[in-house]
Amino acid sequence: MAARSTATSLLSRRLGAAAVRTSAAALFDASFDSLKLSFLPEAVIFPRNKADIGVVLLLANEHNIPVTVRGRGTSLTGSAAPRRGGWVIDLLQFDRIKIDVTAGMAEVEAGAKVADIQNAAEKVGWFYPPDPSSKEYCTIGGNVACNSGGMHGGKYGVTRDFVMALKGFMPNGDWVEWGTPTRKYAAGFNLRDLWIGSEGMLGIVTDAVLRLIPQPAARWTLLLSFSTEAAAFRAVAKLFRLRVRPAICEFLDRYSVQCAEAATGETVFPGQPGRPVILLELAGSPAEIRAERLILLKWARENALAFRAAKTREDAERLWAVRRKCSGAMFELGDSKLNEDIVVPLRSYGKFVRFIDGLRRSSQLSIPCFGHLGDGNIHVNIMYRGADPEQRRAAEAAVEELMAAVVKLGGAISGEHGIGLAKSPFLRLQHSPAQVNAMMAVKSALDPKGILNPGKMFEVFPVWEHKRLSIALPWDHK
Amino acid sequence: MAARSTATSLLSRRLGAAAVRTSAAALFDASFDSLKLSFLPEAVIFPRNKADIGVVLLLANEHNIPVTVRGRGTSLTGSAAPRRGGWVIDLLQFDRIKIDVTAGMAEVEAGAKVADIQNAAEKVGWFYPPDPSSKEYCTIGGNVACNSGGMHGGKYGVTRDFVMALKGFMPNGDWVEWGTPTRKYAAGFNLRDLWIGSEGMLGIVTDAVLRLIPQPAARWTLLLSFSTEAAAFRAVAKLFRLRVRPAICEFLDRYSVQCAEAATGETVFPGQPGRPVILLELAGSPAEIRAERLILLKWARENALAFRAAKTREDAERLWAVRRKCSGAMFELGDSKLNEDIVVPLRSYGKFVRFIDGLRRSSQLSIPCFGHLGDGNIHVNIMYRGADPEQRRAAEAAVEELMAAVVKLGGAISGEHGIGLAKSPFLRLQHSPAQVNAMMAVKSALDPKGILNPGKMFEVFPVWEHKRLSIALPWDHK
Repeated sequence: MAARSTATSLLSRRLGAAAVRTSAAALFDASFDSLKLSFLPEAVIFPRNKADIGVVLLLANEHNIPVTVRGRGTSLTGSAAPRRGGWVIDLLQFDRIKIDVTAGMAEVEAGAKVADIQNAAEKVGWFYPPDPSSKEYCTIGGNVACNSGGMHGGKYGVTRDFVMALKGFMPNGDWVEWGTPTRKYAAGFNLRDLWIGSEGMLGIVTDAVLRLIPQPAARWTLLLSFSTEAAAFRAVAKLFRLRVRPAICEFLDRYSVQCAEAATGETVFPGQPGRPVILLELAGSPAEIRAERLILLKWARENALAFRAAKTREDAERLWAVRRKCSGAMFELGDSKLNEDIVVPLRSYGKFVRFIDGLRRSSQLSIPCFGHLGDGNIHVNIMYRGADPEQRRAAEAAVEELMAAVVKLGGAISGEHGIGLAKSPFLRLQHSPAQVNAMMAVKSALDPKGILNPGKMFEVFPVWEHKRLSIALPWDHK
Repeated sequence: MAARSTATSLLSRRLGAAAVRTSAAALFDASFDSLKLSFLPEAVIFPRNKADIGVVLLLANEHNIPVTVRGRGTSLTGSAAPRRGGWVIDLLQFDRIKIDVTAGMAEVEAGAKVADIQNAAEKVGWFYPPDPSSKEYCTIGGNVACNSGGMHGGKYGVTRDFVMALKGFMPNGDWVEWGTPTRKYAAGFNLRDLWIGSEGMLGIVTDAVLRLIPQPAARWTLLLSFSTEAAAFRAVAKLFRLRVRPAICEFLDRYSVQCAEAATGETVFPGQPGRPVILLELAGSPAEIRAERLILLKWARENALAFRAAKTREDAERLWAVRRKCSGAMFELGDSKLNEDIVVPLRSYGKFVRFIDGLRRSSQLSIPCFGHLGDGNIHVNIMYRGADPEQRRAAEAAVEELMAAVVKLGGAISGEHGIGLAKSPFLRLQHSPAQVNAMMAVKSALDPKGILNPGKMFEVFPVWEHKRLSIALPWDHK
């Protein structure tokens, strides 16, 4: 570590002491993300300008210092935590947002907040669909690094689907630009998309050009109640067959609904307490919505136990409040939660419902599920009492069983959170040795010294053996 | 070459003589693509099954044999030509197409014809938008390799935007699967998208899962005439501002129109001979089209010299016939053509028009342009007499000037054709040394022996110094 502190002094002389902070408070604040596992860095760097980032990387390569990039730190997987110490680069100050009103594009810097981008676009009639639930806090740099999703994924896609061009630094400090602000591009290997979702391990993104779509002129919200989870999933498959793509199709199973009802004292669907629900939102031109609404109402009559359309925007807001409350309300079922954002393809929805029912029986745990049925991204919440070693072991075993099952069902171990530390034990369920080798070969080729965000993704980190910080973050689900 | 023929004998013994063809006719047929530069291979391999491809790659690595993969050979850049000889793997026989009607996906093999995929989808109410002009011939494997586009790019995107999952072989012969048939996926580095557009240099795709969208129920076609190219480009920018995204927005400059008129003896836009035109198509639900049509007609009245809507599908077909004829008709202006599919961002449309006008004056050549204004992908056709060395030199100089200009305008040297051999001299206009180094590092990491499609993209190939085959291909523009 002596070598590291020498390098830090060197860096401090280069960039100035204000840019290289080493106070205990600064180090602690940069030591963890939403996974709440703390790893203290040697220094936190607030670059004066983008060129400073290149300087940091050059020195880091020279002195073998790990470098981890940080936005707001909302990652749930530990991907922003400096696992091996070293230097953390904080990009929050680079937060410029510029909307190209004619072309429908946003030119943004990595530290720009996702909600700010959405608001800036909306003000001039454009729309940026990806909306992770932490959007009021998280940055677009983090969204690009983790290929973030949100509720709009089924109809519109995820971060990857909206990134046109990226700028930033290769691990060796080289400045590069991938892609142009054009929809078509066929000029060389696609390192733009290799960067997206690489969790800060293959480069540092400083700038992005995002594609926008016209702001939907109208929205229409429908809440539906179903007798069982299986009935709800079957109904969604029928909706797909009807070619109707709701902008949002949020599902809450009976356990999530019961949590929300216990927490609020209100019935989610009046007259149908404790039933699974789906919350649908159509978005588009008034003409489109008029046409789709008719199809949807007929489908609802044929498939739901009961349903109710929002009459006003406020009415819709009340329906959405349920969805937002259920995640926090789950802590009534156990003080600890393993929240897994798995994905299953539509054809496996039925099998998945049966699997989760079996898992509840075999683990004896509460496992409320909710998620985005438009894209098969289901949040499985395994609740347990942290102080009870038996429950903890049962929860860990349930996660492993879940991960193996979703891969077998043709799905993925993560739809939007990424791997980081938290899912590293399961990467090899998703990927064969050949696939992991190919990914690691790319990593070695672009970052031969392993400077950028080391210890993540490929190295198995037994996350359950580590004690999490007991700290409340502004974006924690209440 | 003795070593190569030994290896070929070995391969023949492994796969059987029927799978490893070495007749002069077989070798010639596999020696070129639509660039029409011939490089004879040692053997053409028709794998009996997919596992054979792994065997070929293992042997190729062992004996240092170049391997080039081939679909229909419609590539315009030479990306499917076996530049360094060796083995060509023909994937045409793997042409299975399976539509998942519920989920809206197509599971296809690499050799499946793009038009067949579109037709299979359309039959059950789904739509696969990418439509390169060779779609009646080209394969989805080639489309993935080159990230092909087409006329629908502006509204719907290109091949990349529709690929959910890929299967195939790494250069070392390892079988891999990238992505799952789900819209969300955040589990490991994104080698799926690294494969897309890598022109057969980073792996061999054997299977793809494609996302489909609902078949638009209605279409509406409008032909517009403009006084000048600049007026047409300005009008399109205004249309973008109105948030109307036509499914197709094809532009023909006055020179392209004049070619078509000379060839057919008919006026493209009655009463407005020799004027630039735009051909627009709206696609969507009848309700959407009704709403967009009103906006479009108002815009047309304010911006076009004249316009005319197709009254019937046959009427629309007549309008489209013009667009299809212009490319072949250009050979009236010169027996040789350098067809460059550059891309310019919307904000540079005006500057681009002025640049091309200047290039016509300085080169003294005919340079008809047409293309997809929805995504800035313009086909610049530099016409010259091949036997006239002065004209040839002028054409070559014009291409170089064009490529430098589009990069300066923030665009790309290729929107949908790719680099291959034809654009290799310009790759370094698009990409800095750091960017080229990063791409080459990825290539070396995944294909250390440089087996797959060597001599392409990064190596400068002076395409104009080589004599092209004088041969007519079924997909040549008539």
